[in-house]
Amino acid sequence: MKVSIVGVGKVGSALGLTLVARGIADELILIGRAGKDPQAPNFPAGEAMDLLHASAFTRPAQVRAGSVADAAGSDVIAICTAGSSDHLPRDSGYLSNAEIFRQIIPALVEASPESILLITTNPLDAMTTLALQLSKLPASRVLGTGTLLDTMRLRVLLSEKCRIHPRDIRAYVLGEHGDTQFVARSSASAGGARIDLEQSVLSDLEAQTRTAGHDIMRHKGYTNAGVAMSAACIIEAIANDSREVMPVSTLVRGFAGITDICLSLPAVVGRQGVLQTLNIELTHAEQAAFQRSAECVRETLARKNF
Amino acid sequence: MKVSIVGVGKVGSALGLTLVARGIADELILIGRAGKDPQAPNFPAGEAMDLLHASAFTRPAQVRAGSVADAAGSDVIAICTAGSSDHLPRDSGYLSNAEIFRQIIPALVEASPESILLITTNPLDAMTTLALQLSKLPASRVLGTGTLLDTMRLRVLLSEKCRIHPRDIRAYVLGEHGDTQFVARSSASAGGARIDLEQSVLSDLEAQTRTAGHDIMRHKGYTNAGVAMSAACIIEAIANDSREVMPVSTLVRGFAGITDICLSLPAVVGRQGVLQTLNIELTHAEQAAFQRSAECVRETLARKNF
Amino acid sequence: MKVSIVGVGKVGSALGLTLVARGIADELILIGRAGKDPQAPNFPAGEAMDLLHASAFTRPAQVRAGSVADAAGSDVIAICTAGSSDHLPRDSGYLSNAEIFRQIIPALVEASPESILLITTNPLDAMTTLALQLSKLPASRVLGTGTLLDTMRLRVLLSEKCRIHPRDIRAYVLGEHGDTQFVARSSASAGGARIDLEQSVLSDLEAQTRTAGHDIMRHKGYTNAGVAMSAACIIEAIANDSREVMPVSTLVRGFAGITDICLSLPAVVGRQGVLQTLNIELTHAEQAAFQRSAECVRETLARKNF
Amino acid sequence: MKVSIVGVGKVGSALGLTLVARGIADELILIGRAGKDPQAPNFPAGEAMDLLHASAFTRPAQVRAGSVADAAGSDVIAICTAGSSDHLPRDSGYLSNAEIFRQIIPALVEASPESILLITTNPLDAMTTLALQLSKLPASRVLGTGTLLDTMRLRVLLSEKCRIHPRDIRAYVLGEHGDTQFVARSSASAGGARIDLEQSVLSDLEAQTRTAGHDIMRHKGYTNAGVAMSAACIIEAIANDSREVMPVSTLVRGFAGITDICLSLPAVVGRQGVLQTLNIELTHAEQAAFQRSAECVRETLARKNF
Repeated sequence: MKVSIVGVGKVGSALGLTLVARGIADELILIGRAGKDPQAPNFPAGEAMDLLHASAFTRPAQVRAGSVADAAGSDVIAICTAGSSDHLPRDSGYLSNAEIFRQIIPALVEASPESILLITTNPLDAMTTLALQLSKLPASRVLGTGTLLDTMRLRVLLSEKCRIHPRDIRAYVLGEHGDTQFVARSSASAGGARIDLEQSVLSDLEAQTRTAGHDIMRHKGYTNAGVAMSAACIIEAIANDSREVMPVSTLVRGFAGITDICLSLPAVVGRQGVLQTLNIELTHAEQAAFQRSAECVRETLARKNF
Repeated sequence: MKVSIVGVGKVGSALGLTLVARGIADELILIGRAGKDPQAPNFPAGEAMDLLHASAFTRPAQVRAGSVADAAGSDVIAICTAGSSDHLPRDSGYLSNAEIFRQIIPALVEASPESILLITTNPLDAMTTLALQLSKLPASRVLGTGTLLDTMRLRVLLSEKCRIHPRDIRAYVLGEHGDTQFVARSSASAGGARIDLEQSVLSDLEAQTRTAGHDIMRHKGYTNAGVAMSAACIIEAIANDSREVMPVSTLVRGFAGITDICLSLPAVVGRQGVLQTLNIELTHAEQAAFQRSAECVRETLARKNF
Repeated sequence: MKVSIVGVGKVGSALGLTLVARGIADELILIGRAGKDPQAPNFPAGEAMDLLHASAFTRPAQVRAGSVADAAGSDVIAICTAGSSDHLPRDSGYLSNAEIFRQIIPALVEASPESILLITTNPLDAMTTLALQLSKLPASRVLGTGTLLDTMRLRVLLSEKCRIHPRDIRAYVLGEHGDTQFVARSSASAGGARIDLEQSVLSDLEAQTRTAGHDIMRHKGYTNAGVAMSAACIIEAIANDSREVMPVSTLVRGFAGITDICLSLPAVVGRQGVLQTLNIELTHAEQAAFQRSAECVRETLARKNF
Repeated sequence: MKVSIVGVGKVGSALGLTLVARGIADELILIGRAGKDPQAPNFPAGEAMDLLHASAFTRPAQVRAGSVADAAGSDVIAICTAGSSDHLPRDSGYLSNAEIFRQIIPALVEASPESILLITTNPLDAMTTLALQLSKLPASRVLGTGTLLDTMRLRVLLSEKCRIHPRDIRAYVLGEHGDTQFVARSSASAGGARIDLEQSVLSDLEAQTRTAGHDIMRHKGYTNAGVAMSAACIIEAIANDSREVMPVSTLVRGFAGITDICLSLPAVVGRQGVLQTLNIELTHAEQAAFQRSAECVRETLARKNF
């Protein structure tokens, strides 16, 4: 498994460490700018050396800093440019990111035409849609971390309340990885049974989920561990061709009347990327929420200079 | 396994992420100062939330920020205060760290009298020696990451040359985790066979090992992934009572005539900490190098205000 | 984690190998009869030596043959006496097994009063009920592998049809581990969505699930791999206190009007055994099937000489 | 990773379970005879079903019984025909095994020309040599479990004496997997240090190692767990291209003057099979022992009708 990480900031570094700690990649390429910090004139090169040493304790890997050319032949390219963390407001900062995408994605895809593109950059769904357009890849090969992290945050909270492993909590946050996200409450279950909590408690947990990214930013100035782990788990599912179901940002084709943009739906992830999305049943209110998410992403995409 | 991390900087954060990614701890307490960065007014609290979410993907853990009192009952307390990374020259910055140790270690040990103290703070061997003195714990329960990371760096280099898994390279860097460290070349082997490299090549790899920390710092401004993984592997050996042999900083009792300070020797690590150190055979030159390391640590300990 | 296996036949041996291969136990005691085979005069002793060697490749464990006294202090005692496999018709062979349970369970519990008893012996639900009565342990500490294996068989079949990881298929086989078992179809889902298969296809998969044990027996003369893996996963959930939801045989207290016997319901398994059972919603027909399972187990328990 | 197991007896079944328990293979083909047991008219088909169900708990795999044609495209073919276990005297039973090899190996290699052949059948070194000759594959692609199991048995014993993890005990059993095997005592070390045991104790442990297989057979009638785990670890090293050093039976080319037959030497195992053997230094006495092993294998190969 050859993985390239484009953007070696807080999220890219944490993703590198997570991949190394879990022994997921044989070959890891870090692609990033030298950086403006005089104390860190070549951050990617230093990070690659550090991760190379760390990999000796788990699964020895080739880790090195490189350019787009070095990423050639990647199985997965994770795009973690500025804004992957929540340390920028999710709907700002996109100007530079969109510009960066236009520069790098065609070149990356030319060098790795068989690769899967995994987007972690915010505004997530707009950036994933843009990446899909720029890459000209099949839709199955471009996906974003989307609401996977939001979903895991909700499951952690429900897990504590229900005293059940988070993996047994089936409750999706869907739609936009942003403020219009919503919980598909009608299909939520715990171990196959109805979640036995009052609506007010559920609403409170949903609100905590929605604001979790902001809360972490407010305390530590950015977020990275959770989103890096989300990306690592998607990469692991690809590496193992595991066909696990995860809510990730993927091209919507007719769900709730939406088409042509990327939003998070439950998707089956395997060696070829998104193998299928599931036709989860939503109430009318949930469908409306999904449509509001779509609207929000469309607005972002339509902004001048995006 | 309850693990507390004291100091939530570059190393402490990376250690937290590594422990979570590998599913080592059930309970993880982050103890750190609020910090002076106005963008990160409560870094430990934010990091704890972020790691809590990440843990849902691996082994769900209780992760929270806390005080010394919250660390009560820890199985391992990892001390990762400023200087754990190589971003400070290894022999500077000790004034404040020594002061911090005097403040926190007695309180930590009082609250967790059964804990093992794992030191990653530089100057590593002096700080480990100081921690042992302050803690009044048995010597087996205070250890430092020492030359484990240097050893793995050397093994990575030898592994590439010999085309053999690093775990099968048995070549220790011993003595001080600093410039006086040395390779126990006389006992080095690869898969049980003599390492078939010219002395000049070996000398070059040793030099690369010695300067690796500086090289990473020069590029990225600090080091954290390697040292965090070293600490995580020590904690994993403790958790599993695995009795693996690792070069770690531990109280020397008569080896090469040295006594009463901590330096790195091959040690057996298990549930009770350092179970034994191995009587590795050294040449006269290697013994002299070990004694120089001891001298260097003694000088640090003797400095005014240390 | 100290695990004792009582009964070192096809299932007990396979459970031992699975525990060793996955590195679950630190200490493993095999308790069995010498056996009548002149070629294998002390099977448990030989198996223990063999497994001890195998454990060196994964997680070194203390493995030895022993008596009830050697099992003292076990965290889990797995009872795999004759009939754990499906190689006896599930509703025969119980006479000797019931007699064996009466002899060993009180002694086992006296030596390991804190242990959890895990039953794999058929007729599974009757034997689990009997073990609970004989042990006088709290109901949470006596459980049987129950329909966990049947459930996994069904999920394998559904997984192939739906092209989704079995872990994301939520479809329980409940009731008796035997011919009256049934699929809780009304609550079945795949990745949170309705399973999109025709009823006739589903019925066919259910029939395949019900007869899978018999089919394997017909071909190989016994079953062991699947039931051993079921038991190993329950033990792993106990060891990690993971609170995973699994359908296991546990005391029913009022579900569908049934009480006082053990049958399989979705249960949360952790360090203390069965932490809770889930109130899964069943249709009237499913409830009736559950009641038929109960009836069947009651009849077995009521047979003369059981 | 596609693995085929030829021979579904005690060893083949245990290897299948170990591969499934550790999640090593994606695709597993069991090739075996229907068997003479009327209770088990199609053992491989039943075993495949049982292992398929077990794999759902770890890493879902395609498991099925098949013919040589179904093995086409295998990455590894493990030959576990009668005599893989020690239940036959290691130097008997070879007539039928040699005959079987002549029938199946050319066909297997024709269908899977890129495969690695892993032999577990006794007399191990003669059968590995024969397999190499019959297959016409490069020497790197034909290997036998050899003294890997004997080595692990010795390490378990030394580990208990030294209180050190077996992985840190570097002490090879080399030569023949049979009575002429010997310990390369001159190069033995524990954690890089000399093993601090009296010669009489060492001799005793060596004798226990040599007779361990016989002891297990005497007790349980056959051996399988240890040899299956040995084979599984070799397959894991191949799958991960880990370049781990293991003593395995491989073509000797000039070591101690021996050439043209297979015996166990420390070898580096990776994706392409045996990547190199290590030039371990032996004393004159150890070299003589190696030559005796060679003599013994040559005699077996020269027997009429082998």
